[in-house]
Amino acid sequence: MSEIKVPPLDEAMGEQVTKYLDTLTKPPGSLGRLEELVIELGKMTGEAFPQVTKPGVIVFAADHGITAEGVSAFPKEVTEQMVRNFLNGGAAINVFSRAIGAEFAIVDIGIDSDIEAEGLTSKKVRRGTGNFYREEAMTREEAVQALKVGYEEGEKMLAKGVKCFILGEMGIGNTTPSSAITAVLSGQDMEKLVGFGTGLVSESVLHKQKVITEAIHNRQPNAEDPIDLLSKIGGLEIAGMAGAMLAAASHRVPILVDGFIATVSALIANMIAEGASNYMFVGHQSVEPGHKAAAELLGKKPLVDLGMRLGEGTGAAVAFPILQAATLALKEMATFADAGVSSN
Amino acid sequence: MSEIKVPPLDEAMGEQVTKYLDTLTKPPGSLGRLEELVIELGKMTGEAFPQVTKPGVIVFAADHGITAEGVSAFPKEVTEQMVRNFLNGGAAINVFSRAIGAEFAIVDIGIDSDIEAEGLTSKKVRRGTGNFYREEAMTREEAVQALKVGYEEGEKMLAKGVKCFILGEMGIGNTTPSSAITAVLSGQDMEKLVGFGTGLVSESVLHKQKVITEAIHNRQPNAEDPIDLLSKIGGLEIAGMAGAMLAAASHRVPILVDGFIATVSALIANMIAEGASNYMFVGHQSVEPGHKAAAELLGKKPLVDLGMRLGEGTGAAVAFPILQAATLALKEMATFADAGVSSN
Repeated sequence: MSEIKVPPLDEAMGEQVTKYLDTLTKPPGSLGRLEELVIELGKMTGEAFPQVTKPGVIVFAADHGITAEGVSAFPKEVTEQMVRNFLNGGAAINVFSRAIGAEFAIVDIGIDSDIEAEGLTSKKVRRGTGNFYREEAMTREEAVQALKVGYEEGEKMLAKGVKCFILGEMGIGNTTPSSAITAVLSGQDMEKLVGFGTGLVSESVLHKQKVITEAIHNRQPNAEDPIDLLSKIGGLEIAGMAGAMLAAASHRVPILVDGFIATVSALIANMIAEGASNYMFVGHQSVEPGHKAAAELLGKKPLVDLGMRLGEGTGAAVAFPILQAATLALKEMATFADAGVSSN
Repeated sequence: MSEIKVPPLDEAMGEQVTKYLDTLTKPPGSLGRLEELVIELGKMTGEAFPQVTKPGVIVFAADHGITAEGVSAFPKEVTEQMVRNFLNGGAAINVFSRAIGAEFAIVDIGIDSDIEAEGLTSKKVRRGTGNFYREEAMTREEAVQALKVGYEEGEKMLAKGVKCFILGEMGIGNTTPSSAITAVLSGQDMEKLVGFGTGLVSESVLHKQKVITEAIHNRQPNAEDPIDLLSKIGGLEIAGMAGAMLAAASHRVPILVDGFIATVSALIANMIAEGASNYMFVGHQSVEPGHKAAAELLGKKPLVDLGMRLGEGTGAAVAFPILQAATLALKEMATFADAGVSSN
């Protein structure tokens, strides 16, 4: 993946959008963050009136060998069960994808079963990761392969004409590799990074923290090598989402990053191709304590904070209308001159 | 307006929704605030699957005599100019109303000019308020009349079948009466309540604070009498929005309150009919410093904080899709039983 190059932002277009915003019938700056968003979208896309519709949602699903250490409240089988729920349109991300008119795809990048179904893109790199408490999660080759799957699925989604990417995941246990990668990259204490997880009760938190701390010690990942991080302590869907993000960024398509797991993928993507994060917004602040550290590492402030901790891409999908509103204000509002309104 | 009664919340339906949420294919509570929102909507509407579409937006426009004291960065004429912009569909609230599929109405409840135009509901109570630094803003009769206009326009909007109310305003200078009412109700220092306003430069802030402090001293409004507050230091559009909120609340229709001005209207509405605030959410946190105090008095935490300070109902309209997402999750997600997913 080292050949991927992310284009620089179009700073001139950012200035053009900034100036145009001040001709619209509102006090300068009064749309607040919406104005910042659309300026960034101008820089990303190079377009005077950037669009984010229709968006594309890709959910990558995979299993995690580390669930054998008792780090998750749900049994591993739930990954496959939930994927079937996605295929039937009954999960939260289905509901929210429909609400925002998104193209939707679901990719098996490493579910630990022989699931095949209509609508499921089968790109299994391996049947779940190894238990990285005891062995590497995957080989370097598998990590690169998972990134490539993500990149290819990203390109397939781009071919459908989508103007904004939302990446989601389903993988019981995946807060554990995400916390491990965040710990290695941030150097923060495990107590600050590992909280309740999705459904985990508090007595299990100490155990999860201990497992992750010892697993990092056992694996000794190189904090400056994203492939080493993925292969030693990562996850297949984490790699897949990172690959898809690289496809979007290299084609100047904005990415609305979801919560904790997706933000870790974003960090990996930005390590692989510097500047990829220039094409990213973070959609929501997850309740997962590690997300704060990950978002700070990425240098992004989440758009909304709604106490969500579901994953699947749901937080980003719920935040998407804000990004869309920003583009619509730029495109559809009258100027002071056109409307005959005194600008001061 | 003292005859208005707001029905109690349907607590039993709140419990039913709460229980049903835990049967949906997600870890309990993992949709965070969305779950709280839809439980509240269940209580408000008494429906097991509450809806908020289509929403209705009513913008009330009026002028303010207090602009003669130099409290606003924009000339008073901008109120009428912006109303013409609304009528042409070029303002931010037009853009965001279209984006959420809202019914839209604009009401002249006190513009200080002879504007008449197609699409504008002419219900002028008087041509702008009096300059409440020197005289009462309006008579008690006018305050009641403005509330009635709002209530009637609210009922007209309800007749269109809307399921959620967003109230907006246009009135150059209206942060001044809003700050005055908030100061009287909260007892907080003027320095904490009066900031930049829409477009005001910082050197003018001290002047605005001084004008409001002295105006309150001059008028001596009764903090326990909402009609006294409106007539002595209020605004016609503030009363109109309060009246429309009372129409919604008395018909158990949820209200998504916009920023500072609208939250002050919400406080007035709740003083007129206790329990009206049970039917309210606050859509966004305005940059206006007084909004924090007003939202706290109302007992509501805004859904989003996007640095907006435009008014018109724009913050609520931008936040609306979050409320909608909450209703869709409840209605469209599969249950664990239906989807064959292990719940633990």
